[in-house]
Amino acid sequence: MNQNEFAELTARIKAFADARNWEKFHTPKNLSMAVAGEAGELVAEFQWLTSEESTLASLSPEQLQAIKLEIADVQIYLLRLADVLNLDIPAAVIEKIKINESRF
Amino acid sequence: MNQNEFAELTARIKAFADARNWEKFHTPKNLSMAVAGEAGELVAEFQWLTSEESTLASLSPEQLQAIKLEIADVQIYLLRLADVLNLDIPAAVIEKIKINESRF
Amino acid sequence: MNQNEFAELTARIKAFADARNWEKFHTPKNLSMAVAGEAGELVAEFQWLTSEESTLASLSPEQLQAIKLEIADVQIYLLRLADVLNLDIPAAVIEKIKINESRF
Amino acid sequence: MNQNEFAELTARIKAFADARNWEKFHTPKNLSMAVAGEAGELVAEFQWLTSEESTLASLSPEQLQAIKLEIADVQIYLLRLADVLNLDIPAAVIEKIKINESRF
Repeated sequence: MNQNEFAELTARIKAFADARNWEKFHTPKNLSMAVAGEAGELVAEFQWLTSEESTLASLSPEQLQAIKLEIADVQIYLLRLADVLNLDIPAAVIEKIKINESRF
Repeated sequence: MNQNEFAELTARIKAFADARNWEKFHTPKNLSMAVAGEAGELVAEFQWLTSEESTLASLSPEQLQAIKLEIADVQIYLLRLADVLNLDIPAAVIEKIKINESRF
Repeated sequence: MNQNEFAELTARIKAFADARNWEKFHTPKNLSMAVAGEAGELVAEFQWLTSEESTLASLSPEQLQAIKLEIADVQIYLLRLADVLNLDIPAAVIEKIKINESRF
Repeated sequence: MNQNEFAELTARIKAFADARNWEKFHTPKNLSMAVAGEAGELVAEFQWLTSEESTLASLSPEQLQAIKLEIADVQIYLLRLADVLNLDIPAAVIEKIKINESRF
C-alpha cells in the first residue's frame, strides 16, 4: 500500500496548525474531543432523515455538500490525533479489519 | 496526490461488509451513527486522563493500543460512509483545509 | 422521591413537539442521534480549554451560558427519548447507581 | 416546579463520587467527555435498527433494558456536570424551551 495520501494530508494539517501556533491545543485528549464534536455534527446532519432520505439518490446537492464537509472535519482531527500519537492509520485499519475477520 | 491508500482501504472494508451481507445495514444514516458511536469510545479512552497523561510520552503500550484500535474503528466507518455516498475523502479534506485557510 | 420535575419537563417538551407535528420525527432511533449530536456540541465547548479553564471559577459568563444551553439541549432530547420509550429516568438512574455501587 | 428530583439525584451521584475520591477526575472538561462517551454508547444501541425496530413496540426486553441503562449513564454524567458548574438543569431546560418557542 502506498503511504502517500495519509502522510501528505497529515503533513498539510500539521503545517496549518503549526502556522497558527495551535500545537499547545493539540493534545491527544483535546483532539479526541474534537473528533467527537465533529462526529456529533455529522450525525446531526442525518438525525431527522429516514434511512431512505439519507441515501445518495435522495440527498440534495446542498445536503451532500454539508455532509462532505462534516466527514472532512472528522477526518482532519482523526489524522491530527494519529499524528501527535505517531500512529499509522492505514496500518491500524488493516490490523482492525483482521481482528474483525477473526470475529465475524 | 496518490489515491491508492483511501481507495484500497475502502475496497477492503466494502468487501468485508459485502461478504457478510451487511449492505442493508450500511445506510448513510446508520453509518453516521456508527461513526458517532466509535468517536464516543475514542473520547472515553481519554476522559479521565489529564492532557499530560494523554501524550505519547505518558501513555502505556496498552493504552496506546486501545486508542489505535478506536481510531481505526472511526476511520473504518468514515471510509464506509464516504463510500456509500460516493464521496472522495482526500479531496474533501483538501477542500475543507482551503476553507479553513480563508477563515483563520 | 417526588416525580414532578421529570414528569413536568417531559410533558412540556412533548407539548412543544406535538404542537409542531414533530411526532413522526421523534422515533427512538432519531432521538438517540439528537442526544449524540447535542453531546457533541457540549464537548466542543470544552475541547480547547484546559481542565483548569473549564472550571466554574475560570469560565466567563458567556461561556457558562453557552454550556448551560448545551446541557439543556442534551437533557431535552434525553427526556424526549425516555418519553417515547416509556422509561422512568429517575428510577433508571437509581438502578444504575446501585449497579455501580456493587461494582466499584 | 418541585426541585426535589434533580437535587436528590444530584446529591446521590455526588456522594457516590466523593466516597471514591473521584472529585479530582470530575472537572467540567472531563465530565463533558463522559457525557459524549455515554451518548456514543446510547446511539450505538440503535445504529443497526430501523426506525420501526427502534420503537417501544418492537424492542425486546433485553434491548430496552440496555437502552435504559445507557440513558441513565448519560443522565448521571449530565447531572454531575451541572453540579460542578452549579447549574440548575430544570431552569436551563425551561429557558431553552422558551428560546425554541420563539424560534420555531
